[in-house]
Amino acid sequence: MTNLITVEQKILRKNADIAAENRRELDWHGVLGVALLSAPGSGKTSLLERTLGALASGARAGVIEGDVQTDRDARRIEALAVPVVQIVTNGTCHLEARMVQEALAQIPLSQLDILFIENVGNLVCPAAYELGEHVRVVVMSTTEGEDKPLKYPAVFRNADALVINKTDLLPYLPYDLAQAIGFARRVNPGLAIFETSCTTGAGISEWVDWLVKRAAATQADLK
Amino acid sequence: MTNLITVEQKILRKNADIAAENRRELDWHGVLGVALLSAPGSGKTSLLERTLGALASGARAGVIEGDVQTDRDARRIEALAVPVVQIVTNGTCHLEARMVQEALAQIPLSQLDILFIENVGNLVCPAAYELGEHVRVVVMSTTEGEDKPLKYPAVFRNADALVINKTDLLPYLPYDLAQAIGFARRVNPGLAIFETSCTTGAGISEWVDWLVKRAAATQADLK
Repeated sequence: MTNLITVEQKILRKNADIAAENRRELDWHGVLGVALLSAPGSGKTSLLERTLGALASGARAGVIEGDVQTDRDARRIEALAVPVVQIVTNGTCHLEARMVQEALAQIPLSQLDILFIENVGNLVCPAAYELGEHVRVVVMSTTEGEDKPLKYPAVFRNADALVINKTDLLPYLPYDLAQAIGFARRVNPGLAIFETSCTTGAGISEWVDWLVKRAAATQADLK
Repeated sequence: MTNLITVEQKILRKNADIAAENRRELDWHGVLGVALLSAPGSGKTSLLERTLGALASGARAGVIEGDVQTDRDARRIEALAVPVVQIVTNGTCHLEARMVQEALAQIPLSQLDILFIENVGNLVCPAAYELGEHVRVVVMSTTEGEDKPLKYPAVFRNADALVINKTDLLPYLPYDLAQAIGFARRVNPGLAIFETSCTTGAGISEWVDWLVKRAAATQADLK
């Protein structure tokens, strides 16, 4: 097992080096990098669709889509006339910084304020891999139950914000929102928390305001 | 990369050897091994609770619970007075056959007809690791969208059955059940498909009948 741990440590160290290069590239162009992580089907792509719509008149955004297979998500984003690059991992369970580095070369960064990076749907493996993002956001849906922060703590511990999505389904679920928030804060007291429905649009403006402020702060820092 | 692939192949080969030992152990006791895989929050544990309740007067069942952290799921199963062993993987994104082998030593197999093995919530990594099960079941919930079989094909390709859970939420979702089933059959035409709600109990009896028949067939084969 010692050999394996060493291999993994080497991979993570190399990944962190490339992630730092990616971050410098984003900084150079004054672009806020926002990574989105969640379980499969929590609504990352739907949240992106809503967010891009709400941003349209404000910050200029681009998207890197990560999936194990298919370009379905990239095609959904393309329909919004936003620059998008699809990464198909072909079985790999998470994005790595080198994949994002290749995708960055295909994105017109000089025309953007925010770049979203949607990871593979997976609450475990992506947690260990920095991609070069400035902000890491976990999306959790109300239909998944309250206890995901306790059962998958690493991804919540390393996040800046939590979006609790599908709030429109709350009337039909035995879901205790206060308990879910309590569990998330127990793992990470500093989380910014947003409650959204991509079906009704509820809560989207608060989340987008926060993003726009973070993008403005990043650009101010770089001046 | 060559080195890494070799390491992974060695790990998978060693895992398959131990899985075969686990299967022989289950065969020896005439126990049907049923692996449950899904995304986080699809309802594997809720399905188990319903299934164990429906089996109570029929087949005798035990459970191995796999989680990245916490023994919350094992405590839910214990409440039903069923033998249960919790495996906490401490960060590992999937169960491995050696973990299940250790757990088997703590389960009274001679008193069982069916052993459920609930994997970590993850639609990617568990697909590659046999555990010694006879039957592999994927659970997918209606709230996750229709396209998961296309986006995470490996786990659906290697499954015997698909349980589409949370059908009680269909009236509130833009979910096309026929399309979801079509996508699943495109990846794996041989899937047995069940539609369940663990909230209302709908569809549980069909699923349990199928399990009981599989358990009886396994026991008949071994005689």
